Amino acid sequence: MQTMMQRSLLPENSLPGGFRFAAVTAGLKPSGRPDFSVAVADQPASAAAMFTGNNVKAAPIHVGDRHLQRSGGRVRVVAVNAGNANCATGEIGMQACETVCAAAARTFGAEGHEVFPSSTGIIGVPLPAEKLVAALPEVERQLAGTTENFAAFANAILTTDTRPKVAHALVSVGDRTVRIAGVAKGAGMIHPQLVPHATMLVYVFTDAAIEPAELNTLLHDAVEVSFNRISIDGDTSTNDTVLLLASGASGAAVDAKHPAFRAALQDICTSLAKQIVDDGEGVTHVVELQIEGATSDADALKVAKAIAHSPLVKTAWAGSDPNWGRLMAATGYSGAQIEPERIAIWLGEQQICINGGRVPDFDKQRAHEYLKNREYTIRIDLGIGQGKCRFWTTDLTEEYVRINADYST
Amino acid sequence: MQTMMQRSLLPENSLPGGFRFAAVTAGLKPSGRPDFSVAVADQPASAAAMFTGNNVKAAPIHVGDRHLQRSGGRVRVVAVNAGNANCATGEIGMQACETVCAAAARTFGAEGHEVFPSSTGIIGVPLPAEKLVAALPEVERQLAGTTENFAAFANAILTTDTRPKVAHALVSVGDRTVRIAGVAKGAGMIHPQLVPHATMLVYVFTDAAIEPAELNTLLHDAVEVSFNRISIDGDTSTNDTVLLLASGASGAAVDAKHPAFRAALQDICTSLAKQIVDDGEGVTHVVELQIEGATSDADALKVAKAIAHSPLVKTAWAGSDPNWGRLMAATGYSGAQIEPERIAIWLGEQQICINGGRVPDFDKQRAHEYLKNREYTIRIDLGIGQGKCRFWTTDLTEEYVRINADYST
Repeated sequence: MQTMMQRSLLPENSLPGGFRFAAVTAGLKPSGRPDFSVAVADQPASAAAMFTGNNVKAAPIHVGDRHLQRSGGRVRVVAVNAGNANCATGEIGMQACETVCAAAARTFGAEGHEVFPSSTGIIGVPLPAEKLVAALPEVERQLAGTTENFAAFANAILTTDTRPKVAHALVSVGDRTVRIAGVAKGAGMIHPQLVPHATMLVYVFTDAAIEPAELNTLLHDAVEVSFNRISIDGDTSTNDTVLLLASGASGAAVDAKHPAFRAALQDICTSLAKQIVDDGEGVTHVVELQIEGATSDADALKVAKAIAHSPLVKTAWAGSDPNWGRLMAATGYSGAQIEPERIAIWLGEQQICINGGRVPDFDKQRAHEYLKNREYTIRIDLGIGQGKCRFWTTDLTEEYVRINADYST
Repeated sequence: MQTMMQRSLLPENSLPGGFRFAAVTAGLKPSGRPDFSVAVADQPASAAAMFTGNNVKAAPIHVGDRHLQRSGGRVRVVAVNAGNANCATGEIGMQACETVCAAAARTFGAEGHEVFPSSTGIIGVPLPAEKLVAALPEVERQLAGTTENFAAFANAILTTDTRPKVAHALVSVGDRTVRIAGVAKGAGMIHPQLVPHATMLVYVFTDAAIEPAELNTLLHDAVEVSFNRISIDGDTSTNDTVLLLASGASGAAVDAKHPAFRAALQDICTSLAKQIVDDGEGVTHVVELQIEGATSDADALKVAKAIAHSPLVKTAWAGSDPNWGRLMAATGYSGAQIEPERIAIWLGEQQICINGGRVPDFDKQRAHEYLKNREYTIRIDLGIGQGKCRFWTTDLTEEYVRINADYST
């Protein structure tokens, strides 16, 4: 098994077979940059999807969910627009989404319910479906199973992201090689709430042969330790989607228990999740939280989320400020069971809190220097059990406020 | 009944009888400004208190709670230091707190358990009790029942606040006049979680004669609609405290059902709560949320809190950005029962969302202009029930980040 994080182009020969990609400018992004990404499977691909847990769901979430149910988990076309979320757009939003799906189905010779739509961008503005429909002929002309087109797909789904997010892996299955490649977007409104239906925009393609039910299990298990473990701002989007497609073009069959495939998929999802955090809006520090010694994994996760969502903690990180009392405060209101006098905290290798109080030889300057790193680790041992989790989050900077206060993003 | 919001000095003759006040510089604030506020009741006053719901509690929270239990709800001395929270300071923090209480008891001729301590400031740094003890003789010299000293008390409890927060009321009880006056501090880490024990630093004094049990009821009812309805940054402090003392010096007895007294106390608490929000760190907009049409008041509160804690909503407010989709998104993940297509939203008098979608004649510029006001109202009708709440919160600005990223606040 070989897993690599990619910033843009995949290496030659690493693209999963059975898919073609394209991206064009349909005219939704004010910048005029490409905003319509399409992937077409040569044959109906096995599909597993997870959607946002937000009770306000964008039209494409409803439509995509319905299409997957109708097709029995088969997808021919993935159609993703950036620049408009098609959310809080009422009945006309649903119609706009169906219009795009129907046109894509005609263009690529698929059934309407074999088209999987996604949208990302501003909420509450009607989606100009006609622009997307008008762009489909150009999409068809450009479709190709090349790393260049895959990179174009990865780029056109971006909104406030500063760079594409790509990861891939090769997995040996018997005497064959299976390819997996994934792309993601997301830099704000990032706090996926993963009910069995959740996340941001992530598309993972593989040429392994996998039944939809097995694919679902694989996806849920991978998401639980990756996209379910990140937060930038604690906001859960109305449009989060993770889609995993298996074309079978490699001729190698894989089930949900295949160790190497499971590991590769989890690595890809973790890589994409961390890339999303790393590219968070205004981010200057990426923090890995290691919570341990909780009475349950669920309690450990509560502590991680309270810390990851605390403006006071996140602003202290922005200033490389070793104000660990804010970590204590967030731990205290997390809802997790704690005994304050048993809490210990480390910044990297430096222990700064023992038995709920400051270590006697606290070296504040050393802690300050460590927190100047772009990436670092904070470990909190609650000291009362075996529950633990890893979680990735960011600081909260003036730049984040500037980006999101900009009228109208 | 007469209720007024006061920025500094109370009017003559409005100070509750039976209390004397003083504030001195003990040397905890690096600025050298007064940092030790003391109130002394001539006779043991009836007392009711509510403390933070954070599971990490500062030493004075533990000590104050214990003292109230031991004294049966009687307080002679209130001793508040700013500049050090005495939290996450372990056993030596408890000892430091007890040392200050014991010294104050000796100075003012009280029992140790008649002293009610509070601390606010940085977490995790040992409290230099000796500085507070050394300042007690000067406190004793200065003690006086004057509006000047009351103002000094209100000033010395401040930390990152930019101004003191004071409110008072006069209530006619039979042929007598009862006085109530309160002070508050708090500008960050403001999101009181009000279990029957909660909030930030608030001290309310009255010269009505009220038994501790009645006082408890009055305080809980008032806090529920005031301090329980504000949030600046969603962080719940380790030190939040609301203390209500009744000296009885007016000679007028009041019970928990006295309508005018109840109303005056609630007005004072609401005034202080809104003053805290108005003085929030880096705040440029104060927002009153009116949530209605929820299936329960609890659900309405969930929606208010989700909105009040959403960085994306709060940064949009900073930019006067009528990006109401972010309100929809936060409503969606609030956990409240909703039917998105029944949601309606107003900015002041302007309806911007109907049936979960944008109003047909949405006037974005008008909405933008309205959101330039420092104070405004956002009303959300969920359209599915009778549950409602009012809630006050703020925007999230670059200045908030600057204040809290400043190494080391």
